[in-house]
Amino acid sequence: MYKDTSTAEIDIALEKAVKAYHQYKTYTLKQRADFMRTIALEIAELGEELIDTAMAETNLPQARLQGERARTIFQLNSYADAAELGNWLEASIDTALLERTPPKPDLRKMLIPLGPVVVFGASNFPFAYSTAGGDTACALAAGCPVIVKAHPAHPKTSTLMADAILKAARKTDMPDGIFTHVYGAGFESGVYLVKHESVKAVGFTGSFSGGKALFDLANQRKTPIPVFAEMGSVNPVFLLPEKLATETETLAKQMAGSITLGMGQFCTNPGLMVAIDDKSLDKFIVNLKREIEAITPAKMLHQGIAANFNEKLEKALAQKGVQLIGQTDDTQTEGKVLISVATASGKTFLANPVLHQEVFGPYSLIIQCENEKELLAVAKAMEGQLTATLMATTKDIKNHQQLLDEVQEICGRFILNNVPTGVEVALAMHHGGPYPASTDGRFTSVGADGIKRFARPMSYQNWDDEFLPNELKNGNPLGIWRTVNNELTKLPLDEKNV
Amino acid sequence: MYKDTSTAEIDIALEKAVKAYHQYKTYTLKQRADFMRTIALEIAELGEELIDTAMAETNLPQARLQGERARTIFQLNSYADAAELGNWLEASIDTALLERTPPKPDLRKMLIPLGPVVVFGASNFPFAYSTAGGDTACALAAGCPVIVKAHPAHPKTSTLMADAILKAARKTDMPDGIFTHVYGAGFESGVYLVKHESVKAVGFTGSFSGGKALFDLANQRKTPIPVFAEMGSVNPVFLLPEKLATETETLAKQMAGSITLGMGQFCTNPGLMVAIDDKSLDKFIVNLKREIEAITPAKMLHQGIAANFNEKLEKALAQKGVQLIGQTDDTQTEGKVLISVATASGKTFLANPVLHQEVFGPYSLIIQCENEKELLAVAKAMEGQLTATLMATTKDIKNHQQLLDEVQEICGRFILNNVPTGVEVALAMHHGGPYPASTDGRFTSVGADGIKRFARPMSYQNWDDEFLPNELKNGNPLGIWRTVNNELTKLPLDEKNV
Repeated sequence: MYKDTSTAEIDIALEKAVKAYHQYKTYTLKQRADFMRTIALEIAELGEELIDTAMAETNLPQARLQGERARTIFQLNSYADAAELGNWLEASIDTALLERTPPKPDLRKMLIPLGPVVVFGASNFPFAYSTAGGDTACALAAGCPVIVKAHPAHPKTSTLMADAILKAARKTDMPDGIFTHVYGAGFESGVYLVKHESVKAVGFTGSFSGGKALFDLANQRKTPIPVFAEMGSVNPVFLLPEKLATETETLAKQMAGSITLGMGQFCTNPGLMVAIDDKSLDKFIVNLKREIEAITPAKMLHQGIAANFNEKLEKALAQKGVQLIGQTDDTQTEGKVLISVATASGKTFLANPVLHQEVFGPYSLIIQCENEKELLAVAKAMEGQLTATLMATTKDIKNHQQLLDEVQEICGRFILNNVPTGVEVALAMHHGGPYPASTDGRFTSVGADGIKRFARPMSYQNWDDEFLPNELKNGNPLGIWRTVNNELTKLPLDEKNV
Repeated sequence: MYKDTSTAEIDIALEKAVKAYHQYKTYTLKQRADFMRTIALEIAELGEELIDTAMAETNLPQARLQGERARTIFQLNSYADAAELGNWLEASIDTALLERTPPKPDLRKMLIPLGPVVVFGASNFPFAYSTAGGDTACALAAGCPVIVKAHPAHPKTSTLMADAILKAARKTDMPDGIFTHVYGAGFESGVYLVKHESVKAVGFTGSFSGGKALFDLANQRKTPIPVFAEMGSVNPVFLLPEKLATETETLAKQMAGSITLGMGQFCTNPGLMVAIDDKSLDKFIVNLKREIEAITPAKMLHQGIAANFNEKLEKALAQKGVQLIGQTDDTQTEGKVLISVATASGKTFLANPVLHQEVFGPYSLIIQCENEKELLAVAKAMEGQLTATLMATTKDIKNHQQLLDEVQEICGRFILNNVPTGVEVALAMHHGGPYPASTDGRFTSVGADGIKRFARPMSYQNWDDEFLPNELKNGNPLGIWRTVNNELTKLPLDEKNV
């Protein structure tokens, strides 16, 4: 049904995207925001057809998809608001001092768009991180045309979304080429896109191997481009002694819920729990086993993901020293898998890198540490993570200052007494951890700061007010926040400064 | 005199740097700023010994070095001020909404340091972009210990600077390992440093081949790290028709001064001038020839740079269609070179990539374009540049809107009717162009925004006020700007928000 887009078609799309870029970057922030808000409206207009189509393609339940649709619409609207507010532009002005020797020139800086952006749809978020998802919204907000490589697992859903975007583009008079949808069952079209000289940045959500391949391709180009790949993560949860002793049952319930939420198919799924091996931990394990085994597994997103989970689970459980401690009943039918939890000692974990790897799906490993020293060693041995969580009382925190320090080094979001699943769309969210959680932990893929991924600073020296972008004109016609001579202000420049 | 630092010594230095990092990152912004200001004082204390040493090692004249010392001190002080002001932290807070379904957690985000940073000293700025230069200042401001690979062309100067930094570190009670100076005549120690797992970022100013090699090494690490390499650039100057016709002599004088400033050894040296071939351009060329030939060449930084200039100049002038039109008298003594200007047609330029490359030193090539169309084609054919300059009247600007648009695509700083040499240390400065001008044109190496190169965002979810960094506490004890629920403010949180 969805024929692979040919390289010739991609060339034409990118030629159009480049033309669209030169027009779109001159559009006002308000025009960009209106376009995004219209996309949100068009998505809402799709109604139940969108939900039904996604249910058929992804195995995700109705309520989850309704929630994800609301989130996708919220993202588009909130990033549109942020785009228009203009704080992300980081506008700054240093006025001239002509009497100085040598004269100090007038300098004005703001972020400008990078150019056409390629976005790879994710399988686990068919709306929020796919065709009309967060990466697309951020790129459009920044002033960049978008070329989406539709995820082959949900082409119909993606096409509905693409049609909504194109309808919104027509309604708001966007240039032809502002958005293109590309289909491809294999890797070829993705590789071709990332190597294309007209492409200036890449957004990706998916596996480590996929993200790493794109990152390497992009760095090997004649002109390297940034790749923002949000990849795997095991999102360790540290269960500290007093908390574990006093809230054993509650924690087991919370963790069972987080491990199995959406059948473990969230990038913030807690794949590791770390604690000191004591009686409370034994009790926690008994409780967790009971909680897990009481859950009825749902189907995973598609058969490929289920097969991949089964393969990785088998490998994880086959490692020396790993003991399965809880598993759902054998309900293995197409797309269904066994929710599982296991244990291993700190020593086992420290000695075996396989146990540090993500098993994408409903599986979590409890690391039983001999003592505080080993707990710290386990934390230090971990790779970069999207999130790290501390379940701790005030006393626990005070007793584990070095652990707190080390855990911050490995994560992008540090959580106290909340589960890592559930990624709030907010400015203060950071969704991007140190490598290999993402290719560039300095940027977020959730929240309006994600707009900055697709922009770069440009400094204008000695330009007349008439020719400056509105954002940098003396009178501050857009009323945005700007740093003028090192002070944040919304005021126009003083006459003495001009 | 300066023995190469061994890999064993580097290992020890990095072990200390990691320890220092864990301490230093807990220091207040004020403590960091005080350390930097004390370095500035210690540099001033070095007095004439610093200038004399640098004169002997670099061939740079006294006045230039005095100016560069003032700039280095200014950088340290102004980045210290910026560090303390805290705007660069991009602190943001989204307060909880516990009554929402699901409850919205409290999220607080700010930039935190990356870890130990390696800085490669530059040959052309023995103070401002070397041991105690801009990269070092930015990394210290961000909270990162620094390991400097001293530039082998001025080891004594670098050692004086390193001693000043270490003295300031002792005076302000900085942890052992906060700063290390590494010597190495060859590439080995630099390569070893960039591959070292304890190193988290790299700052570099120098050649394209050097910067590219470090960039590739860093990307091939198991855990890739960012490399901020500021590399070559030809900094094109577009001389538009009306401006060229009305200010022919002034422009020739300005350009001759900019081409030969510091014997062309600035990264913003204008290596290309582009204009439409008309009578005004002929007159400009006659004037430029006269101006250039009236200049008495000085020695270049060292014999290696002079030899490199001669080799590249010879190659550039040997290209088909390139015509030498002005050159200083034969004053070739050790370290001296012939200041040269040449011409080529737009067609010649478009057909020959050699002419797009930087010839580091006092040489510039005038591209004579047949018409407006060719002028635009020449602009579009250029690679990424640190700067691009327009010499234009208001009418010229109005007549060349497409040129303006295209030129912005290739540069990081866009200048009107100023020469590109002279890089102001200011927040609104952007010194970093699209690749290959720098490896990451999204970051600047001049101005306080350069601090952000060595930091990453960290999001704290659901933490008690008591355990949050001061920057994010409810009461805003540091009085910094923060974005609270999407609004910039210095106010503490309202009681209703906490």
